[in-house]
Amino acid sequence: MPFRAQLKVRFGDIDHAGIVYYPRIVHYFHVAMEEYFSQALREDYAHVLEQHRLGLPTVHLEVDFRRPFKFGDRIEVEVRVSRFGDKSVEWSYRIFRQGADEVCVEARVVTVCVHLDRFKPMQVPQWFRDRVERYEAG
Amino acid sequence: MPFRAQLKVRFGDIDHAGIVYYPRIVHYFHVAMEEYFSQALREDYAHVLEQHRLGLPTVHLEVDFRRPFKFGDRIEVEVRVSRFGDKSVEWSYRIFRQGADEVCVEARVVTVCVHLDRFKPMQVPQWFRDRVERYEAG
Amino acid sequence: MPFRAQLKVRFGDIDHAGIVYYPRIVHYFHVAMEEYFSQALREDYAHVLEQHRLGLPTVHLEVDFRRPFKFGDRIEVEVRVSRFGDKSVEWSYRIFRQGADEVCVEARVVTVCVHLDRFKPMQVPQWFRDRVERYEAG
Amino acid sequence: MPFRAQLKVRFGDIDHAGIVYYPRIVHYFHVAMEEYFSQALREDYAHVLEQHRLGLPTVHLEVDFRRPFKFGDRIEVEVRVSRFGDKSVEWSYRIFRQGADEVCVEARVVTVCVHLDRFKPMQVPQWFRDRVERYEAG
Repeated sequence: MPFRAQLKVRFGDIDHAGIVYYPRIVHYFHVAMEEYFSQALREDYAHVLEQHRLGLPTVHLEVDFRRPFKFGDRIEVEVRVSRFGDKSVEWSYRIFRQGADEVCVEARVVTVCVHLDRFKPMQVPQWFRDRVERYEAG
Repeated sequence: MPFRAQLKVRFGDIDHAGIVYYPRIVHYFHVAMEEYFSQALREDYAHVLEQHRLGLPTVHLEVDFRRPFKFGDRIEVEVRVSRFGDKSVEWSYRIFRQGADEVCVEARVVTVCVHLDRFKPMQVPQWFRDRVERYEAG
Repeated sequence: MPFRAQLKVRFGDIDHAGIVYYPRIVHYFHVAMEEYFSQALREDYAHVLEQHRLGLPTVHLEVDFRRPFKFGDRIEVEVRVSRFGDKSVEWSYRIFRQGADEVCVEARVVTVCVHLDRFKPMQVPQWFRDRVERYEAG
Repeated sequence: MPFRAQLKVRFGDIDHAGIVYYPRIVHYFHVAMEEYFSQALREDYAHVLEQHRLGLPTVHLEVDFRRPFKFGDRIEVEVRVSRFGDKSVEWSYRIFRQGADEVCVEARVVTVCVHLDRFKPMQVPQWFRDRVERYEAG
């Protein structure tokens, strides 16, 4: 069962058209990834950055927005590592309204692993692969 | 010559890794589209929404991030309508550092036309096609 | 015991100086007020706006920032209604690091009650006074 | 004549009540301060941080919000250094609609000077006092 972060649409997330401002949904992906690290992988993303010196800048993003969100919506953001490359990690996201099956937003995000001391690409660290595998094995 | 909006990377746009927070770049696309309406099409986006009752929610987004931006960077966001569908508009964006030729970010965004009174899809209005055509004819 | 909302400092909340961008802390106040409505008063703020048609625009804000926050900090935002005026509500906020007694940020915010149909000032509704009183009585 | 930064209210700045989300106005102050550095003092704020290693974290903020802003509003944010302390700088902000005399928002912000290598308070640098004086002398 993939990890899901529980989020609430905030008053300030709404735009002039009365729905969630779409760049804000991309922010939800990042927040959900932070929760995936702390809750699923048991390693705070702050710790990943500061201790492991691993950064994960995004190089590619693809999103389908199927249903808009409104103020007060409670949403679930599903986060999965869908592929490990040599130096990259592909993430898959799906957003649902709480308690509903319909996929409202779907996304694929590719991040690269960089060493933060030099901001240079590095191999996906073994501890990271192991943690993801362990989480998925349940 | 496609339209370019001139933007500055702001102090608050930077994230914990010292580069522009990537959802913020999606916000830059929206700001650049607002400038395209007011500067290139000579119709404020606020006016488009309030008088024409035309909304342009985003249904698809694809972005390639090739170079990160830092605080103080001056950037140019190129905006083009790359395709009109029956009820949709495809936008193409490219971001450059000011005075440089390298494409730092490239994106394709699909918006649908909705009538804001009912939030229902509608045909691309003729005035919009005409304005885009007129701008492109120079 | 005043209500406290539990929040996490997010990756995107950090600014170029490596601490939480200070306008973001003002956003934390708003999020904490939203939680106060749903958790303490048992009335979603979205419901307050849409059903009761009550809006609470801010007219005055005073903040003392004593300690900065960093990425990964878990914080508690204390929210209290410190005074009811005839048409206004004064809120007091204090932010702590989780498990610590030191006040890191302290604020006083004055909102006015407006009827959202006309955006005109209105008396503080009785249901609102009652709910706050009931919560404080514990 | 005090410095004024020209800003536009953006689509994403609007909240669920249809006016500018008030934490966003605090962001406008920061953007206006960045413009004050580059346009009035002729020293990019990025340069101040990176070369002079001077940071200006906010320790106190007081704002009166008198008129709300809507999407499409063009605004002018007046920025002044209203007082130099030994290690602190007090800023005064006023926001106007373009071409109008009415003060819509008024604020006083106190920042302290910190050396960014240690994040420790430092005296207001002489170059900074000189630049402000020179700008004000016109």
